Amino acid sequence: MHDLTQTLALLHNTPVALSALLRDLPDSWTAKDEGEGTWTVYGVIGHLCHGERTDWMTRAKMILDFGESRTFERFDREAQGRESQGKSLGDLLDEFGRLRSENLAMLASWNLKPADLERKGRHPVFGPVTLSELLATWAIHDLTHLHQISRIMASQYRDTVGPWVKFLGVLHCDGHSSPA
Amino acid sequence: MHDLTQTLALLHNTPVALSALLRDLPDSWTAKDEGEGTWTVYGVIGHLCHGERTDWMTRAKMILDFGESRTFERFDREAQGRESQGKSLGDLLDEFGRLRSENLAMLASWNLKPADLERKGRHPVFGPVTLSELLATWAIHDLTHLHQISRIMASQYRDTVGPWVKFLGVLHCDGHSSPA
Repeated sequence: MHDLTQTLALLHNTPVALSALLRDLPDSWTAKDEGEGTWTVYGVIGHLCHGERTDWMTRAKMILDFGESRTFERFDREAQGRESQGKSLGDLLDEFGRLRSENLAMLASWNLKPADLERKGRHPVFGPVTLSELLATWAIHDLTHLHQISRIMASQYRDTVGPWVKFLGVLHCDGHSSPA
Repeated sequence: MHDLTQTLALLHNTPVALSALLRDLPDSWTAKDEGEGTWTVYGVIGHLCHGERTDWMTRAKMILDFGESRTFERFDREAQGRESQGKSLGDLLDEFGRLRSENLAMLASWNLKPADLERKGRHPVFGPVTLSELLATWAIHDLTHLHQISRIMASQYRDTVGPWVKFLGVLHCDGHSSPA
């Protein structure tokens, strides 16, 4: 049984945690990727902003308004390249925090009941999904990117740690990523 | 070439970030593990406190005082079970922040020069290691546990996310852990 309070507690904390982790770090941590075709920390935060702006709450509202009769738009995993132009990492962290707060305030205003969580929408790949599954995924999507950020940053020190590379699990993570 | 400023910036931020991520979360996130023989988030924070108290700075000082003539003690990866008794997660987060601040202040007081970073000590498994490698590992050890924490929490929602389990990389991470 999905406890929405548990989900909301994490959704509330993640932007503050990312801000504390990344604020004022040198670019040598946040502007580097893991190799060709991979993301920087800066890119990940832009992606999280895009999700707040166009994905999670839009899909939640679509479930409540239209049920399975409309199919969600696909996530645009490259949108952050356009939307982040001219913004610093600090700007993006502020934006993520602000958008998340607005979204959680709107969600609270809907006053969802347990039965609402069982309402269904239509995912372009999976078909029917519940509001419960969507909101749980919103929180775990934060964690998947926190997992990725810790790995991107660690990879910058693959050589610097010398023989300890053997004992540091994060340096043996192969990413496990798949299309959003 | 190891930029100590880069390392120190991350070492400074991690305790604040973990406090923001975990403070006041329900136990359903922080008191659960990933299965038999694995750690809870609470256990990880206790382990980080133990490292601040007995490992990183003790080893750094041993390098400066004795070079390769003394071998480091092994990490005690189970110490947190004893040391955390009676403490809340909030207590441990406070303790981690306080110990880290004290350690970084002491490190700053040593006024290390680039040549000091090349000084060597003796690791019980690897043999000769440099102070540079030790300090880099201290920072990446934070990231390896941030990576682990995001995975432990995500695993609590493996079923709750429904079909999205397929797209969430953190739920496909197998841990990559090895003895410290």
